[in-house]
Amino acid sequence: MTLDPRFNQDIDRTGTGSSKWDKMEQLFGVSPAEGGLAMWTADSDYATAPCVIDALCRAAEFGVFGYGYDDAAYKQAITWWMAERHGWEIEPDWILTTQGLGHALATAIDLWSPADAPVVIFSPVYHEFAAKIRKVGRTPLEIPLRRDGDRYEIDFDAAEAALTGREKVMLWCSPQNPSGRIWTAEELRAVAAFAEAHDLILISDEIHHDLIYPGHRFVPAHVAAPEASDRLVVLTAASKTFNIAGQRTGNVIIPGARLRSEMKSRLAATDYQPGTLGVAMVTAAYSPEGAEWVDAQMQHLVGNCAAFETAVNAIPGVRALPLEATYLAWVDFSGTGMSDSEISERVRKSARIAPTPGPGFGRGGEGFLRFNLATTRARVEEAGRRLREAFSDLQ
Amino acid sequence: MTLDPRFNQDIDRTGTGSSKWDKMEQLFGVSPAEGGLAMWTADSDYATAPCVIDALCRAAEFGVFGYGYDDAAYKQAITWWMAERHGWEIEPDWILTTQGLGHALATAIDLWSPADAPVVIFSPVYHEFAAKIRKVGRTPLEIPLRRDGDRYEIDFDAAEAALTGREKVMLWCSPQNPSGRIWTAEELRAVAAFAEAHDLILISDEIHHDLIYPGHRFVPAHVAAPEASDRLVVLTAASKTFNIAGQRTGNVIIPGARLRSEMKSRLAATDYQPGTLGVAMVTAAYSPEGAEWVDAQMQHLVGNCAAFETAVNAIPGVRALPLEATYLAWVDFSGTGMSDSEISERVRKSARIAPTPGPGFGRGGEGFLRFNLATTRARVEEAGRRLREAFSDLQ
Repeated sequence: MTLDPRFNQDIDRTGTGSSKWDKMEQLFGVSPAEGGLAMWTADSDYATAPCVIDALCRAAEFGVFGYGYDDAAYKQAITWWMAERHGWEIEPDWILTTQGLGHALATAIDLWSPADAPVVIFSPVYHEFAAKIRKVGRTPLEIPLRRDGDRYEIDFDAAEAALTGREKVMLWCSPQNPSGRIWTAEELRAVAAFAEAHDLILISDEIHHDLIYPGHRFVPAHVAAPEASDRLVVLTAASKTFNIAGQRTGNVIIPGARLRSEMKSRLAATDYQPGTLGVAMVTAAYSPEGAEWVDAQMQHLVGNCAAFETAVNAIPGVRALPLEATYLAWVDFSGTGMSDSEISERVRKSARIAPTPGPGFGRGGEGFLRFNLATTRARVEEAGRRLREAFSDLQ
Repeated sequence: MTLDPRFNQDIDRTGTGSSKWDKMEQLFGVSPAEGGLAMWTADSDYATAPCVIDALCRAAEFGVFGYGYDDAAYKQAITWWMAERHGWEIEPDWILTTQGLGHALATAIDLWSPADAPVVIFSPVYHEFAAKIRKVGRTPLEIPLRRDGDRYEIDFDAAEAALTGREKVMLWCSPQNPSGRIWTAEELRAVAAFAEAHDLILISDEIHHDLIYPGHRFVPAHVAAPEASDRLVVLTAASKTFNIAGQRTGNVIIPGARLRSEMKSRLAATDYQPGTLGVAMVTAAYSPEGAEWVDAQMQHLVGNCAAFETAVNAIPGVRALPLEATYLAWVDFSGTGMSDSEISERVRKSARIAPTPGPGFGRGGEGFLRFNLATTRARVEEAGRRLREAFSDLQ
């Protein structure tokens, strides 16, 4: 099979102000100058869709960058995308624009979770959930998911037992980061029922919703559980899908009038206003041309996953969980019997790769590393070779 | 004198998501389709500097828009600009990046002014000062400037008398918006001494600092009063200077370690992170090429001011205050004896122009309108003709 040139150009991102590449050495001791591979932060090493680039070029040529806003064309594009790609019918006025989803998360927690209320998360989960909770001065209440072979399941008994009764907010990650699984409609209904039973606002981070592998289908929380409309806050963005995270344009979709009005007031109080280039890029991305590009990207990622899994699963005691969604491989090194620091040492020093360490994802993350596969096939294959080599004494 | 084509192209901004043009009819009843002239929001109708456009084109061609940050090149460019253009020596690590200066203002007020403390402002002043203060749930304490002919002066006796003793923060606007005057070093030292005497944090909004007319020189608050370092927070941005406000990249320059650390923590808590295209545009703007463009822009604005002032000052009872800085003409209609609503009615309905109403700038704004002259010469001349016509019964 030939490689798609759109995703296989060898682009050097060092020295471009890229967090993933330019902060790698400082954070992980892995030097890009010495061939280090950045596989941590969740962005892609390839260029975005041509329709997004064209929109930016047109904006550049227009040359006037005065005050703007999240206009009707932008909200219409988002509405179209959700219906077309996810079978999710939303109203344009449900959409609020934030400065990326980190800003949305921090704002939502600060707004809705009182100072003494723990914030419910299900671990292992996106490390920034616990980090944002702590940033705004709250405490995460971490409920471990139950691992059943290659899959994580929700342990509602454990969740019931863990609640203190003071909780007001739960953060949910769907598709699940870091494990890359898609929750079923039935599971999502159970999650919504849990939120209802304990009167929790359900904040569903669905940022990876477009990165779905062939044969799988993502179900939006609101489609699975429309009965949760009044307690549901959905976080989406074109940022992972189209590799435009640097523009920091997040979309918070809130079907219920009360929560929406509260979030709107809070964003107004901090005087948040959308950046016009981000608005233009999202508008261009959520289009038929954008959809075609995303489909092609998924084909590329299918090959990347296969190459990576074949390599790492050949190492005794190492297992990459099969991905249904996301370009983030969640790899269990616990079968090697090594400590987290020994695993990291080998991966960073011998393989010269910087993945995201598993323990940061909370309980259940011990013994894991998360590898970002959104790069060229060549780099993924090189990473596979280096990992096999770094653990060759086990083979 | 020939017109500079860089500032005199007839660019149609309607339908481009421009607040100034696309919200004009809804807000002021002045329709762009019927030839209405937008002279309110402070952005420009001409394209930004070619060096900024080139930087954006290069970013578009690179195509990878992953996570980034306000890198060393950006902070170096800002540092260079402040030294080169304003004789202000700053350290790169004094610079914090915000989501535009509205975000900076709202954050600063919320951070440093307790719930029951009035926030000191000197009116008439940038209408968003009072608006931001109210948005974050505080109350403005409005101290009127003293008008002395064409100039506003600070009335320190009135200020002393107005303070309640609970104030912690004062907002200062330099150069002064809406009157367009530049404060002298001596005045700035007196302002700093006032802040010192009453233990106020001095937030100096210097966003218009580059828009200085030939023959005048802007003095940064920190240059005039270095003794105020520990209580000084300076707000700057390339947004007005280069017409890139839509990118929402503000620079908060804080010389003192304690205030800087407090602002940094607050920005982290709301998970604010700079947009990478804004960073690239500012880096490109603050350059020798950018400086040349700004000088040319000021030459264009000199002609715009002259054309506008000649026209409106010919109307009996109308006086445009002479500008030392900014592209915002502050026009006193009080000599006509008309009420604010009658003046607005004539300007909107007869002249089909939407300026910013004076009363929004606080006490002392009655009888005034603020006209944005950052457009083509032809539009400024047309505005002058229409205003003379609208008030022709007085002539």
